[in-house]
Amino acid sequence: MARIEKLVIVGVGLIGGSFALALKAAGAVGRVIGVGRGAQNIRCALDLKIIDAAGALDAATLADAGLVLLSMPVGQMPTVMRSLAPLLGGRTIVTDAGSTKQDVVELARRELGGSIARFVPGHPIAGTEKSGAEAAFAGLYRERKVVLTPLAENDPEAIAWVRAAWERCGARVSEMKPEEHDAVLASVSHLPHVLAFTLVDLVARHENAKQLFSFAAGGFRDFTRIASSSPEMWRDICLANRKALLAEIDRYRGGLDEIRAIIDCGDAKALDALFSGARDARERWLKDAQ
Amino acid sequence: MARIEKLVIVGVGLIGGSFALALKAAGAVGRVIGVGRGAQNIRCALDLKIIDAAGALDAATLADAGLVLLSMPVGQMPTVMRSLAPLLGGRTIVTDAGSTKQDVVELARRELGGSIARFVPGHPIAGTEKSGAEAAFAGLYRERKVVLTPLAENDPEAIAWVRAAWERCGARVSEMKPEEHDAVLASVSHLPHVLAFTLVDLVARHENAKQLFSFAAGGFRDFTRIASSSPEMWRDICLANRKALLAEIDRYRGGLDEIRAIIDCGDAKALDALFSGARDARERWLKDAQ
Repeated sequence: MARIEKLVIVGVGLIGGSFALALKAAGAVGRVIGVGRGAQNIRCALDLKIIDAAGALDAATLADAGLVLLSMPVGQMPTVMRSLAPLLGGRTIVTDAGSTKQDVVELARRELGGSIARFVPGHPIAGTEKSGAEAAFAGLYRERKVVLTPLAENDPEAIAWVRAAWERCGARVSEMKPEEHDAVLASVSHLPHVLAFTLVDLVARHENAKQLFSFAAGGFRDFTRIASSSPEMWRDICLANRKALLAEIDRYRGGLDEIRAIIDCGDAKALDALFSGARDARERWLKDAQ
Repeated sequence: MARIEKLVIVGVGLIGGSFALALKAAGAVGRVIGVGRGAQNIRCALDLKIIDAAGALDAATLADAGLVLLSMPVGQMPTVMRSLAPLLGGRTIVTDAGSTKQDVVELARRELGGSIARFVPGHPIAGTEKSGAEAAFAGLYRERKVVLTPLAENDPEAIAWVRAAWERCGARVSEMKPEEHDAVLASVSHLPHVLAFTLVDLVARHENAKQLFSFAAGGFRDFTRIASSSPEMWRDICLANRKALLAEIDRYRGGLDEIRAIIDCGDAKALDALFSGARDARERWLKDAQ
């Protein structure tokens, strides 16, 4: 990848801000222009030298951009893409950081016209509970996974550029079909979020909720940590990835029915096998992930 | 509480060992005798001065004991209680640390004869993933909850003694009916364990399990931490508390059906309300728990 002379970040939060900082730290970027709705957040990004200037969704900001990262909440994607389409120059490459990919691809095909050749959809699998520019840091993507879901229409050079940019951030980049990405994330991310939100909701709605919470300990706290995530973000993800998520919820209900039957008939051996198998699988995963 | 001149710990692991260390630190105990099947673990408990001597389930160890704590795995409870019954002196108070209470109470009523007056069932809601004497530490129970489920047959002095012993360990002691205890723990502890084991089991049995695990991140790790717990311990708990747990699984399936319907019909407002409500309830709980 040649150096990105002008990088535009639309949505300078944890994800977009960390991308800018990582590329700056790698010496891979010239000027960084931040675009965002929150004046205070943009000021913070300027103060922290995450961005060099504030821009807007206009020709001055976008026409000569080398790379544009769309890292605002997914709910703003339709509006931003529509504004972007007529402004993009003939050489600007665009990527995004949305948690779901089929909906983003569909939207891009509808909105971007000829620029679709240089729009490479992506999803960095990284983050913390924090948000906003002040949470950004250069090391967020080091050794973390980034999934690209390139399109048949993509210019191969655009794919190579986006891959190289993420690799300069320290990430490990892989490629999938958008539907494969959404199925994998439904299983290991979206489903657990739904399960955690559902448990907290049930306990909170219980007639003796106060007593129940007062006897909840460390296991409950860790299990439900993801139920403290942004409701708006997860509402959008659940709706955007509805089909794959519903399939995972149905598989999970099947699994729950199985273990319910095992407990109901008191089958100690089957219960032991299921618990031991799960624990061993988790321990292997933790070991492999090191 | 007067000082416990002779304390007998049956099962000198994290729970029993920490009880002994906490009482020693509080100057509330004279000699501590450890009883256990694992010679190596008992040697470790001696080396670490958790216990002052090794004993056995015999008259020499038990006849003049002031307090006996049963803190071995629940699966050994029937055998231990049967051995204990004929050995107990007329003044020895007995308590336990089992995670379920109705089954322990039923067993005690069947096995302990007249000694039931001085058997006060209990459950310290504390622990870590670690086990064995070497994991024990004096501060384990500080500010943690201990639930006693006293029996109608109990000598009030025995209840007061057991309560005082836990309070000397720094714990906050409350009392419940055994069935109330089991219902509360089914909801905030046993159910989450079943849900976490079930998720890991499903992912592990998936045809592309390897790929799924490779894209699992921090949310999945915390959600499933409790699926690394002892399979044997959780098998016993699930079977011992089967009735309350099945009721919680059924409630959870109802909750999952509700959220599935909300996602299926794309009701963004209802999804937002559920997620926001859950997050707010969790944040309130964390604040109250401080």
